[in-house]
Amino acid sequence: MRNWILPEYISDVLPSEARQIEAMRRNLLDLFARYGYELVQPPLVEYVESLFTQDDRALDLKTFKLVDELTGRQMGLRADITPQVARIDAHLLNRQGATRLCYAGSVVTTRPDGILATREPRQIGAELYGVPGIAADVEIIELMVESLSLAGVKDIRLEIGHIGLFLALADAAGLQGELREQVFVALQQKDLPGLIELTAALPQDAAQGLQALARCYGGSDVLAKARAALPALPAVSAALDTLVALQSALQVRGIAVGFDLSELHSSYYHTGLVFNAYTPGFANAVARGGRYDSVGEKFGRSRPATGFSLDVRALTQLPFPQGKPGILAPQGDEAGLVAAIRALRAAGETVIVDLGVVDGEVAYDRRLAEQGGQWQVVAA
Amino acid sequence: MRNWILPEYISDVLPSEARQIEAMRRNLLDLFARYGYELVQPPLVEYVESLFTQDDRALDLKTFKLVDELTGRQMGLRADITPQVARIDAHLLNRQGATRLCYAGSVVTTRPDGILATREPRQIGAELYGVPGIAADVEIIELMVESLSLAGVKDIRLEIGHIGLFLALADAAGLQGELREQVFVALQQKDLPGLIELTAALPQDAAQGLQALARCYGGSDVLAKARAALPALPAVSAALDTLVALQSALQVRGIAVGFDLSELHSSYYHTGLVFNAYTPGFANAVARGGRYDSVGEKFGRSRPATGFSLDVRALTQLPFPQGKPGILAPQGDEAGLVAAIRALRAAGETVIVDLGVVDGEVAYDRRLAEQGGQWQVVAA
Repeated sequence: MRNWILPEYISDVLPSEARQIEAMRRNLLDLFARYGYELVQPPLVEYVESLFTQDDRALDLKTFKLVDELTGRQMGLRADITPQVARIDAHLLNRQGATRLCYAGSVVTTRPDGILATREPRQIGAELYGVPGIAADVEIIELMVESLSLAGVKDIRLEIGHIGLFLALADAAGLQGELREQVFVALQQKDLPGLIELTAALPQDAAQGLQALARCYGGSDVLAKARAALPALPAVSAALDTLVALQSALQVRGIAVGFDLSELHSSYYHTGLVFNAYTPGFANAVARGGRYDSVGEKFGRSRPATGFSLDVRALTQLPFPQGKPGILAPQGDEAGLVAAIRALRAAGETVIVDLGVVDGEVAYDRRLAEQGGQWQVVAA
Repeated sequence: MRNWILPEYISDVLPSEARQIEAMRRNLLDLFARYGYELVQPPLVEYVESLFTQDDRALDLKTFKLVDELTGRQMGLRADITPQVARIDAHLLNRQGATRLCYAGSVVTTRPDGILATREPRQIGAELYGVPGIAADVEIIELMVESLSLAGVKDIRLEIGHIGLFLALADAAGLQGELREQVFVALQQKDLPGLIELTAALPQDAAQGLQALARCYGGSDVLAKARAALPALPAVSAALDTLVALQSALQVRGIAVGFDLSELHSSYYHTGLVFNAYTPGFANAVARGGRYDSVGEKFGRSRPATGFSLDVRALTQLPFPQGKPGILAPQGDEAGLVAAIRALRAAGETVIVDLGVVDGEVAYDRRLAEQGGQWQVVAA
């Protein structure tokens, strides 16, 4: 009934939820600023070619298309902000060295990600360009964890993976084309029977390695287990070394991690580390991030990149304090009344003028009343 | 060169401009809250039928269309937020009495409004539903003027009109269909020769009234002039009475007004008072508002309504202070360093970790350095 007029998975954000989203947005952007991240606002629409950093079919399918009347060219309504920020890093800022950028805005997708999802997530995120080492990932993960705490998420469980493991095993097995993609999907979904079937025709080493990957998740013992179970390819060892070093640097910062080595994300632009944050009561990750080192290549500048994002709207089911009630003031053109209302508002108070038909839902707990020729705030 | 990859009249907002837009957004939403306006966030896309409150061809032409894959129905990317807020007032909140709502967000238009315009204005506005009298307009105009001051606009010139004057004269002249629209456009553009030609075949009274309307602009003497020059129809007198009362109520609040009685706005939903704010250095109005009493009718609830909006991005050419420079800190996993950085950030400082390749453009004026076994902030 309430939503009859809106498309499915599209909804209005009404005052109490909007207040919470706005507060989270401000808190997170202020936090990002304290880490040195600068805000950028890419456009909602641009040419389709520049909305994807590479041939990303999944993102393409999620993107609404529209026609630019001025040129006849096809434009897209953004379904992700990261490729736009990569374009800004590559072209517009064109800086040398570390560039820290952040953003907050709606994205729109043609289909929801799940039965409870929205087609208009409120995406907020931070991205660090130009730094290849794990110090950058440590900073991003620390920022992600602090962001979630600030948004009211308690009991954060962090799961880290490394796409380099799959890439090394898939390359070694000579996996290509559709089969490579099917194996990717089976691994991502931890579909072990499917994985066994798909890898049946591969050399035994390769098949066992890919299957072992699907079993490598859990606590800190996973890394040792992976070291034993996976083939000792140089890229495999390098990825595991990175995970060990990351775990240790995060421990210093009081951040405990788990591992999920078959976590590959669903977007094609991640290239190395990937990290997801979970919390009880939420089926999906409440924040996601990772490495996407080649992301700016299409825009002419291939730089290391790491970052994370979250959907603030998904967090509005968390508890949030009520706003402070206001003061109800009579309507009138008397100079003293006008001045009294102005002074209260200038002091930060909410003053609602009684326009004869005041809504009972708007919260006020005091009134402005004339007492002995003076305007005074009294109990409502 | 910088914009080669983006469509015409679409651009990125880079850090210094984004910081200014974000600050203005916060200041204005906080101001609206002090007046009792509650934030709502309507969706970026919805079915085309609900994006227009009535048959609004101008808005229809400005709206990008896209297809909802889930239903095959046509959706639109919003080119205006006011009709969405009217829908929320009519359906979702369904309150009795005064409802104060505000919003801030991007709208996207198929074409720019002028050669210097953007196709993605950052619209921010406030709307007051349920109150027919001018006390509501006084509140909205006061809020509009205070918003502009807060955004850094000095020297505001306010011009007020009343569409009821045109409607009364057009009805009395029996103007209909295309001719009515042509007269509307000629008046809006103050095209007096065109107006004389278009009204040549009308009764003399009606023609003279419409032509007189085009000449009624200027200071406070305009109302007396209009009273003498326009036919004494009841609706004309009522509109002029409203303007007199409004001028007097605004004077009490220190707000001087001018009049432009042929100002009709270009959207079809305004029904009564209209007001535009101008300032030197800007060719177009920096804020616009007015009455649109029938706006919710299509959504099943016709309520009085008045409101205003402005494009914060258009105001970013105004001076804006630089941000406070930060502190550069070394990278490392030493517990004392990690704790020192955290404490500084918790105290509101910006701390940029030196990731070996620090960008020279990011502003810092101090460093975190170890001195005698303690981490200290020193001059950079």
